[in-house]
Amino acid sequence: MQNRQVLFVKRPVGAVTPDVFELRDAAVPEPADGEVLVRNIYLSCDPYMRGQMGESGYSRGPFELGLPLPARVVGQVEKSRRDGFAEGDYVWGFLAWAHYSCQPADMPLWHVDPAHGPISHGISVLGMPGLTAYAGMLKYGKAQPGETVFVSAASGAVGSVAGQLGRIAGARVVGSAGSDAKVAHMKDVLRFDEAFNYKEMDIGAALDKHCPDGIDVYFDNVGGETLDAVLARLNEHARLPICGQISEYDVMNSADQYGIRNFPNLLRKHATVTGFSVRDNMDMFDEFVLRMAALMKSGDVVYTEDIVDGIENAPDAFIGMMRGENIGKRLVRVGEDPTLG
Amino acid sequence: MQNRQVLFVKRPVGAVTPDVFELRDAAVPEPADGEVLVRNIYLSCDPYMRGQMGESGYSRGPFELGLPLPARVVGQVEKSRRDGFAEGDYVWGFLAWAHYSCQPADMPLWHVDPAHGPISHGISVLGMPGLTAYAGMLKYGKAQPGETVFVSAASGAVGSVAGQLGRIAGARVVGSAGSDAKVAHMKDVLRFDEAFNYKEMDIGAALDKHCPDGIDVYFDNVGGETLDAVLARLNEHARLPICGQISEYDVMNSADQYGIRNFPNLLRKHATVTGFSVRDNMDMFDEFVLRMAALMKSGDVVYTEDIVDGIENAPDAFIGMMRGENIGKRLVRVGEDPTLG
Repeated sequence: MQNRQVLFVKRPVGAVTPDVFELRDAAVPEPADGEVLVRNIYLSCDPYMRGQMGESGYSRGPFELGLPLPARVVGQVEKSRRDGFAEGDYVWGFLAWAHYSCQPADMPLWHVDPAHGPISHGISVLGMPGLTAYAGMLKYGKAQPGETVFVSAASGAVGSVAGQLGRIAGARVVGSAGSDAKVAHMKDVLRFDEAFNYKEMDIGAALDKHCPDGIDVYFDNVGGETLDAVLARLNEHARLPICGQISEYDVMNSADQYGIRNFPNLLRKHATVTGFSVRDNMDMFDEFVLRMAALMKSGDVVYTEDIVDGIENAPDAFIGMMRGENIGKRLVRVGEDPTLG
Repeated sequence: MQNRQVLFVKRPVGAVTPDVFELRDAAVPEPADGEVLVRNIYLSCDPYMRGQMGESGYSRGPFELGLPLPARVVGQVEKSRRDGFAEGDYVWGFLAWAHYSCQPADMPLWHVDPAHGPISHGISVLGMPGLTAYAGMLKYGKAQPGETVFVSAASGAVGSVAGQLGRIAGARVVGSAGSDAKVAHMKDVLRFDEAFNYKEMDIGAALDKHCPDGIDVYFDNVGGETLDAVLARLNEHARLPICGQISEYDVMNSADQYGIRNFPNLLRKHATVTGFSVRDNMDMFDEFVLRMAALMKSGDVVYTEDIVDGIENAPDAFIGMMRGENIGKRLVRVGEDPTLG
């Protein structure tokens, strides 16, 4: 059996480049007592991973050099020496970019129920990206009927769900993204009220046009200039769930960091900013997965995955995702998905 | 009877200058039905007033030109045509910089109980500045035993109470202010654990020295460079009640506005920022005033007022307060206080 791995071999300076990764063929490990050998099927590409590639590690510790890149993975149990997991079970966990991962005895693994939908959803709309959107919009954003919700990177893995949950809450939803195809996707598929291409307009002018009544909820995935323009257009008691700062990840602690000038408006408008991730919200998971699976089945929420095939293509898939070339959640399929027809 | 008034006659550009004000002698008004004529005793000088001197009005509407400067005032009822108020009652309200104010029928007025302490406390520690500190530290800051609380402008009207409430909650309290006398006041009188003069040290180095375990609660009165340095030193799940941004009021919407570079750390540390004022927290008033009066009587909280005499000196008293020359709450006494011995 082939066990090709993608190693993380170099901390990027600025944008991630292909030499940050290295392919290696390794033996398939044999699980020890308490361990589970997983045949990986879908690897996740998420912007937060860029943070952990740096020295400081962003909100978790930094990735170690020389090891397969840690990531969320959906796979199928190949061999199990842990109670509760049997050969053939579909699972997800923090595994790695490789054909096979052996999950240590002290690391958790969760079942993925194919009855809820495609198994890839276990690391997308029914997994951590979906829960991030759910917690961000419901717990921190608290979107109300008639309010204006603005979402940046709104065609992406998290933003696309956040925006739809804003619509379901009765708010008017506006999204931004970096291509006309994404704008069309937000309007036609995600059913946002308005969407715009931030690369083609001054961000302030775009917000003035599309959010004429100001902004009540800003679901922030990007930070920087977009955030600053939003701060100038807040309504009283606005809520800003801060989910990502992708415009800043490549320049953290450098002279190119953006300086936010409209921070005092948070005081002026009695607004609340909450930095968060799913880690703080795992207690919502059971409620979330039932509700989101139902919303998917009823068609109230739709979800797009942008799947690249082949582990060799994982580095380019990640780099392209950081550049914004994907529409929806970017995944890499590295093995056969037996649930597909 | 003399009714000298201080009119607001010019919107300041940058720092407030004496020509923003004009003295005028007017007749003492006669209260109509529902109105209360108040003989003003203590006028308040608060940094938030600078915001309302600008075109944009900051969190409330801008002050109107040509009228006596609106302010919180403690006084004594001279004539009343409103139920519930009798000649001789001590009251506070949003009145104005003048010897006499006639409160219109549709504007509220509150009693000040001399049994709680000096009547000036009605617009200081037992009034809105005290409630601001109380709500900020307890509701938004949520200081816990063993945590590090940092307060800027910490010898002032609000910061001095916020810091002491942090100490009473069991936190280690560090304060900054702009003079060695204020530093001594914070350590010797307010019983902060540490204090420093921000004008004599690099703010980052000072925080590294005095908050070696990072910052859990930042009670922000100043914004700008201090805030940015705090953002770089947050602990996980830090809380930042934003009460003032005094470093920015003179430069709002100008090229001199400070650019906050460490905003992404709010995400990294899963921190919460809450812009607030007492307006959102009036429901806490009854609980607050009883608790704070008890803390004052027991000596757990001490409070210093910096009182300037004479309405003619009100403009300079305000300008000096904005420059930070006061220790504790700055008030202007414009009439006899019959409760003083």
